[in-house]
Amino acid sequence: MLRPWPLSLSERIDPARDTPVYIQIIEALIRDIERGRLTSGSYLPSSRELAKHLGVNRKTVVFAYEDLIAQGWLDSAGTRGTMVAAALPDPVKRRRVDVEPTMSNVEAGYRFAAPPARPIALPGGSGLKIDEGAPDGRLFPAELLARAYRGATHRAAGTSDFQYRDPRGAPALRDGIASMLRDQRGLSVTAENICITRGSQNGLFLAAQILVRPGDAVIVEALTYEPAVAAFRALGARIVPVGLDAGGIDIDAVEQACRRNTVRAVFVTPHHQFPTTVSLRPGRRLRLIELARLFGFAIIEDDYDHEFHFQSQPLLPLASYAPGEVIYVGSMSKLLLPALRIGYVAAPPAVIDAIAHRVSLTDGMGNALTEDAAAALIENGELRRHARKAWLVYAERRRNFAAELDQAFGAIVDYKMPDGGLAFWLRFPGVDLDAMEARATAMGLRFASSRSFMTQAQAPRGLRIGFASLNPFEARTALAGLREAAGH
Amino acid sequence: MLRPWPLSLSERIDPARDTPVYIQIIEALIRDIERGRLTSGSYLPSSRELAKHLGVNRKTVVFAYEDLIAQGWLDSAGTRGTMVAAALPDPVKRRRVDVEPTMSNVEAGYRFAAPPARPIALPGGSGLKIDEGAPDGRLFPAELLARAYRGATHRAAGTSDFQYRDPRGAPALRDGIASMLRDQRGLSVTAENICITRGSQNGLFLAAQILVRPGDAVIVEALTYEPAVAAFRALGARIVPVGLDAGGIDIDAVEQACRRNTVRAVFVTPHHQFPTTVSLRPGRRLRLIELARLFGFAIIEDDYDHEFHFQSQPLLPLASYAPGEVIYVGSMSKLLLPALRIGYVAAPPAVIDAIAHRVSLTDGMGNALTEDAAAALIENGELRRHARKAWLVYAERRRNFAAELDQAFGAIVDYKMPDGGLAFWLRFPGVDLDAMEARATAMGLRFASSRSFMTQAQAPRGLRIGFASLNPFEARTALAGLREAAGH
Repeated sequence: MLRPWPLSLSERIDPARDTPVYIQIIEALIRDIERGRLTSGSYLPSSRELAKHLGVNRKTVVFAYEDLIAQGWLDSAGTRGTMVAAALPDPVKRRRVDVEPTMSNVEAGYRFAAPPARPIALPGGSGLKIDEGAPDGRLFPAELLARAYRGATHRAAGTSDFQYRDPRGAPALRDGIASMLRDQRGLSVTAENICITRGSQNGLFLAAQILVRPGDAVIVEALTYEPAVAAFRALGARIVPVGLDAGGIDIDAVEQACRRNTVRAVFVTPHHQFPTTVSLRPGRRLRLIELARLFGFAIIEDDYDHEFHFQSQPLLPLASYAPGEVIYVGSMSKLLLPALRIGYVAAPPAVIDAIAHRVSLTDGMGNALTEDAAAALIENGELRRHARKAWLVYAERRRNFAAELDQAFGAIVDYKMPDGGLAFWLRFPGVDLDAMEARATAMGLRFASSRSFMTQAQAPRGLRIGFASLNPFEARTALAGLREAAGH
Repeated sequence: MLRPWPLSLSERIDPARDTPVYIQIIEALIRDIERGRLTSGSYLPSSRELAKHLGVNRKTVVFAYEDLIAQGWLDSAGTRGTMVAAALPDPVKRRRVDVEPTMSNVEAGYRFAAPPARPIALPGGSGLKIDEGAPDGRLFPAELLARAYRGATHRAAGTSDFQYRDPRGAPALRDGIASMLRDQRGLSVTAENICITRGSQNGLFLAAQILVRPGDAVIVEALTYEPAVAAFRALGARIVPVGLDAGGIDIDAVEQACRRNTVRAVFVTPHHQFPTTVSLRPGRRLRLIELARLFGFAIIEDDYDHEFHFQSQPLLPLASYAPGEVIYVGSMSKLLLPALRIGYVAAPPAVIDAIAHRVSLTDGMGNALTEDAAAALIENGELRRHARKAWLVYAERRRNFAAELDQAFGAIVDYKMPDGGLAFWLRFPGVDLDAMEARATAMGLRFASSRSFMTQAQAPRGLRIGFASLNPFEARTALAGLREAAGH
């Protein structure tokens, strides 16, 4: 006859599970002690009895008991058998539950900061996804990258260089990005000015960490990139929105905001304003730099899709002529694949050191294999060749998208052909945008809400529609869907 | 004859540079406007004059001028030539500098949080590196990983699934890790309980972000893992250190600290205490869980090297019997390669959602290719086979290291053979540890300072020496170096 334990043990032990039976016995016994079903000093059935009860080999039970004795959960009482260790505390405050608690059916017993009702990331789903200007994953040079990864993994083997390393990133990639920024964007930088990040969002978050203390003001445009604003807010920043127009951010409003607040940073996307796609005009660029000097704030310049400019040459970043006022953030997401998560920050070395310290705290370092593979693609010129091919495809898709847009919407839509970037900014003056978006969502279209860009209630609302990831058929389908949702 | 500009332009334009000449002209001209060397309304030399002066094709200069007119830096004044745009602001507050400023020679003009004097990461260098318990990168299965990456890159091509995705990580990897935690560690979890992170440091940082508000108390042991403490501090936590002994954290001290402070989290490494390697005793585990329920704090359980246990079976994590009280943090760093940066957090779904929101802010998402490759290695069993092989090597190195240690130090060293993990904890009762460490550093040995583990001045100091990454010859060399530094 079995002693009181095992309480329904046979129901909880299943030899068919992938977990070895003796580990299942250990689990069940510890859980029963923790739940107060087994108390200090109580005797367990003999290994022979329990093995018979469970229909398993006796050695399995012996192994489990010996292990639990070694761990201190059980004591051997010699010939009298095995008992729950005497030193365990009484289960006074332990929960007694009817259902075995799992991580899925319990509530957390501690306080934590709940997420916002609407997630930042575009929700998943099977409907047609209209992004905010992502590249086309189908153009992605898989074989090139597979070969680059193969080279990196084999370089990693046989060395301990790929263990924990410099939080600023792989030296070869920092060199490669520095030379790319020098040669193509006019930045006077070396590898000492570069910290590799996990995408540009990580670059923004790291920059914000060294700039913002709770209560500090950060200026953003009335229409801007929501994940950046959310990151500043999470770090305790007070967001001060200012207006914008076809020439970019309203500089007089920036100056007024600086006179009324302790502004630590101004977040801008001067090349292709997010979401409206306009370029920041030269005069405003110079005044923004002057204000930065006057008020001592940092300009966070997010140059998220520098390489895709279709009218004239890409504009030089602010960082190329104001190296002491700008923290420059970029990424290889639009060039290769967002999923690689390779971004970078360019700044004076002391700032890079401060950011590298935050890397140590945030995630330690980047994925060295991916950094090594990306460095090889820069070094051997494959990345530039791929960028040129992609540019041609996107230039054609941009023209085609504008034609389809005119065809589908005629005068209903108000837009300007973007000089660069991978998205159009569309306004629908006579349309109830909330109703249109609700209908589009009901139709299964997935895209960023016009409200997600707004930091001011009176900001001129619109939709940002990426054209680069849609082939002509998909572009027509997406626009037909939006047209139907507009209901005109 | 040339008009006043171009000031020393020929010295700054170099056709041999990788940057095209017309972009170099654009750069130089914008910089000169920004510096105040060229002012609004002033005329530029004709394209013919400038081309002759620089010894370049006239079309190159025309292209640069046209581009700058399109951008708004210059105005065309018809037959009178080309002038600096009239709308640009006066350069009243612009810096006048003798040397062309670069990101390397300027000081940042804004305030930022400086890094600490001593970086968290072990400094680079060519001397023999003694880590704190890293795996041996030379055992790393490069070909397996290269193949897994090849599969992942080709799956990524031809789909847009590898664009911006779920911040919780790749579904296949979340499934794979959930089943690993169920089968090998007794956690009752599904993929809904898992968020993939960039290594365990990122998991700790994300967990801390949802738990800690500035001023909240976090309890850590007197000897602990410094990067975790630094992350809590960076988020504004007040660190409350408590003592520890051979049975792990001092639970009475935890209770007292909870009565005096609003404790939001207790950070522990119960399986193999960092740095001392001891396991948290069963009775203390139960009491810690009771205190968590009583005071409403979260237990952050960092199970950083679960798979490498050499005495008895690995102990089940606290998370397996207290799913509502524990945020469980782990990684694949010790199993595969730290450089892959694959970690995970396990917690109830509502907590995972809160953490996923912080992922959106911190870096958006993980490297989907790496996650997909890692999932394949779990799914096809290669990861387990590799773990078994590595376990055998490390078990042998552990025995060998203890023998070498006795040989080299005899009675000078005080240590206990670790039951698990990849490091020894060494104390040197009669030795001046500061002097020993200074001598070792001077000899070129690189290792974590004994002070880096200490959160209390009176904590019993020692060195944590990883044995797994050293082959027998390297182990002997490292210990001979330490022996010499000890000077006995």
